[in-house]
This record gives sequence, C-alpha cells and structure tokens, in this order.
Amino acid sequence: MKIAFIGLGIMGKPMARNLLRAGYDVTVYNRSRGAVEELVKDGAKAANSAAEAAAQATVVITMLPNSPQVQEVVCGEKGVLEGAKPGTILVDMSSISPIAAQEIGKACLERGVSMLDAPVSGGEPKAIDGTLSIMVGGDARAFEQVYDILLTMGTSAVLCGELGAGNTTKLANQVIVAVNIAAVSEAFTLSTMAGVDPEKVFHAIRGGLAGSTVLNAKMPMILNDDYKPGFKVDLHIKDLNNALEAGHTVGAPLPLTAAVMEMLQNLHANHCGQDDHCAIAKYYQKVSGRGIAEK
Amino acid sequence: MKIAFIGLGIMGKPMARNLLRAGYDVTVYNRSRGAVEELVKDGAKAANSAAEAAAQATVVITMLPNSPQVQEVVCGEKGVLEGAKPGTILVDMSSISPIAAQEIGKACLERGVSMLDAPVSGGEPKAIDGTLSIMVGGDARAFEQVYDILLTMGTSAVLCGELGAGNTTKLANQVIVAVNIAAVSEAFTLSTMAGVDPEKVFHAIRGGLAGSTVLNAKMPMILNDDYKPGFKVDLHIKDLNNALEAGHTVGAPLPLTAAVMEMLQNLHANHCGQDDHCAIAKYYQKVSGRGIAEK
Repeated sequence: MKIAFIGLGIMGKPMARNLLRAGYDVTVYNRSRGAVEELVKDGAKAANSAAEAAAQATVVITMLPNSPQVQEVVCGEKGVLEGAKPGTILVDMSSISPIAAQEIGKACLERGVSMLDAPVSGGEPKAIDGTLSIMVGGDARAFEQVYDILLTMGTSAVLCGELGAGNTTKLANQVIVAVNIAAVSEAFTLSTMAGVDPEKVFHAIRGGLAGSTVLNAKMPMILNDDYKPGFKVDLHIKDLNNALEAGHTVGAPLPLTAAVMEMLQNLHANHCGQDDHCAIAKYYQKVSGRGIAEK
Repeated sequence: MKIAFIGLGIMGKPMARNLLRAGYDVTVYNRSRGAVEELVKDGAKAANSAAEAAAQATVVITMLPNSPQVQEVVCGEKGVLEGAKPGTILVDMSSISPIAAQEIGKACLERGVSMLDAPVSGGEPKAIDGTLSIMVGGDARAFEQVYDILLTMGTSAVLCGELGAGNTTKLANQVIVAVNIAAVSEAFTLSTMAGVDPEKVFHAIRGGLAGSTVLNAKMPMILNDDYKPGFKVDLHIKDLNNALEAGHTVGAPLPLTAAVMEMLQNLHANHCGQDDHCAIAKYYQKVSGRGIAEK
C-alpha cells in the first residue's frame, strides 16, 4: 500500500519514520525541504507538491498545524485533491476544527476521495515510540482499510463516529484536561494561601474523588516550578479555540472552557506561550501574588 | 479513654457506633433524642447537653452540619466548653470553614482545651465501614493522642498542618471535585451535541490525560441518568460557600469555583438540591436543551 505523508513537523516526522520502518512505501512532502531530505535518507521518496505526493498513493496522511493549513494543502493549488485518484483515502491526523474537517471531507467526496479525521494524543515522545492514541471519525470501511497503518503509529485507534468525530473527541479531551489543570491550580492556590503545605494536601487528596491523571502528572511539575513542555500553552489555545468554535456551532455552552481560555491567553500575552500548559498555575500565582511552590 | 460524641446524624451515628464496637467508653449527645436512644442500645451513655457529655470525657468529638452549629455546640450555652476539663481534646470532624475552626480553637485554648479540625471524606458508606479518609489540622501532640481513635473511624488520618488545615485540605478537595464534574459535563455536552456517542468518547479518552476518578465514577451515572446520591448538591453548595469565604479571606482567586457554585445554586433553585453532585450535567442539559445520555 503506497502512502503519501504531508507535513513533517515535530509530530509528522517521527510518524512518517515509523511507517518507513514498518516497510511501507512512503512519499513525503513538506513546505520546507530540510525535513524532506532527512526522511529521504530514511528511505522515503520526495515529492515537490502535495498533489505530486498524492498522485503516487492510495492513502494520503496529513499532519499539519490547524484547519487553514489542512484546507490549503488538501483543497488549494497543487493540493492533495489535484493529484489524488478516485478511491484514495485521506487520513487527516492534524488536530483541527471538526466543522472544518466536515467541510474538507465534502470537497474530498466530490473528487471520489474518502476522508477520515484522526487526531492523536500523546505528543512527540509517543509519536517517536509509535504509541499514540488515535481518535477517528469517518466511514467504517475506510477506517478498516487504514487500521493497520494507524496501528503502526499508535497503540490504539478508536472509530468514534462520522467524519469530525475524531476531532470532536479530541476537543472533549482537551476541554477536560485544561479545566482539570485549572481546578488543581485553583484548589492549591487556596490551600497554599491558607498556609497549608501543598505536598501534604497532594498526599491527603490524591487517592480520593479529587484524584486525576492531571493531578498526578502536573502537580509534581507545579511544585518544582518546572514548566518545560510537554504540551504547550499556545497549542492548548489553538485547541480551545476550536472547541469554542464547535460549541458555538452546535449550541453547547462552554463557560469553564471560556474562563480557562482567558487564563491561557493571558499567559500567552505574558510570554508564557511556550511553557507547558500547567503554567495555568502561574496565572493564579500572578493574580494571588503567591506561587503554590513558594515556601 | 473516655469519649464524648456530639452530633448523631447520617455520618455521626455510624462513626460513634464504630467507637463503641472498638470498646471505647462513649457518652453521646444529640439535639433530637431518637438517635441517642439507638446508640444507648448499642452501649453508649446518654447526656442531656453537650456540656454534660464533655464533662465525662477526655476526648470530645463533634460531627455537625456547618460552622454555626459547631460554634453553638462548643461555645454556646450548655456547650462543650462549659463542661470540658482543662486538658480535654476537642476533635471537630464536621466540614466547616477553616476560619471558623481557628476562631473556635482560640475560644477552646482559653479554657485549656486543645482543638483539632478533622473533616472526613467518603460519605455514609465509608462512615459505616470505618473507612473514611480523615484530614487533620492542629497540634501534633494532640493528633498523636487521638490517632488510634481516628483510625477506628477511618483508614487514614493525615496531619496537614495547623488548626484549620484539615478543613482547608477538605475544601481544596471539594473545589477539584466540583470543577472536575463540571469539566466532564461540559466536554460531553460538546461532543454529544456535535453528534458523537458519549460512550465512545468515554472509552477513547479515559486512559489518557483527561482521565480522573470523577470521570470513572460519575460518567456511568450521567450516562444512565442516575442522580441518586452519593454526595448531594446542597452539601457541595455548603462546602463551596466555605471555600469562597476562605478564598476571600486569604486572597485566593476562585473563578472556576464561583462559576460552578452558580451551577449548583441553579440546581438547588430547580429542586435538584438532593440529587448527587454530578447533576451538574443536568445544568448543562438545561442550558443546551439536550442531555448527554439522550440518543
């Protein structure tokens, strides 16, 4: 099965590499050439446009920053749809707006191309290890046809529903993660300002109903004033933008998402956009005048 | 060691019973007599006032609804401090304001009584089983003296800091729980209204960074439209009131707590105060016009 892989960024490069290692015939395209040359050394073929890459393939994978880039690379000049043969499956693994995914999917259908949206969670380390979690939306038959390809890049691939369902699931995930980080930051700001050692609070509550993966993963970072990403504030802003846009479209109220978005935007404006998203604790520190980790 | 136990409600009655079973000499007092008579059948002595109960004991335990009741029972007419001998230890296991706990502790000290605040988490089933989690604030020596008594009622008792630290820790816990329930409700309202099956979203995200004890415990209830408590909306309102009061006093910003408090207050106003706190999902249902569990 011939694969075209378009978008060789922090995530795309190791994902394409895992496909090559598994023995797939992969043609790559990327706007800047450096990453293309790296992948060619690993055995990939190079294309000069998305259209040229897509013309070689039965499965086209895109891994791009956000909705406008996917729109451009798929539907734009020298884009995927200019090269793709009818029957091609497009798997967009970018995290984009589910509304945009559905619009792009319509354009694909007009050219006989079947689209799946298949955003991932796990970040760069899991992209390298091939242990991503992949949330998929689209046609069940297309999903079955690319299932083995997806499991070359991830440990799980779950079909959540129609086209857009992958990104909707990802957005639900990102809403919970952002709000849970803010909940932990808010609760520990309260207890620390009331004079209680945050390590003792952490120890006392983590085993109960307040326990969460966010609490276990992020609290040690917050206590060490360590905001090295991980997952960046600016990327979470992108995801919450997509969540709010989707919420407005379908009529879902997102008051907590909107409140946490303001915290993230404030961090971005204060040059913390490249910090790990648990820097939400720094927003609380700024408002309260006291850090959770301060003795 | 002679114990006075004051406040034989849903929580207090089984807690006092566990002390009797462990062989302690327990004198009980409660405003209404029914519960007193039950406990007398189980081997307790009855007192006619908090003062009379306290006069018999070296350790006085109170388990009452909120700060004003503890204030009244400890400092009021025929209260604990009228009867207690100097050297008595007062263990208030109610969930109250940490500020109130510190004020009551001052009044105790003037009478030579040492106070610990020791709120619990786990609810009625764990009170019955003697498996509560107990969060304690106060003097370390007093804590050591009552440690075995506490472990008759709970599986863990953690000294978190000075007097008030027990309730501060409990409030941090309750802030996280309330906000995490709202996060889950908000995220699933988004994905459901976008047309994605909530069971599939639950399956796809629970193993990742969005995972939490709240997600695992409450999502099945929400999916079954089952709001039988568990922990009631009205009790969570009480706790968040204390959290907001504490936040205002120490200068900790609690924007998400305040937002979720409005949801809980709205549920109370709509006759859902006796529902489980995961009825926050019903608030989202009302605003969006669609339930997460609806097909």
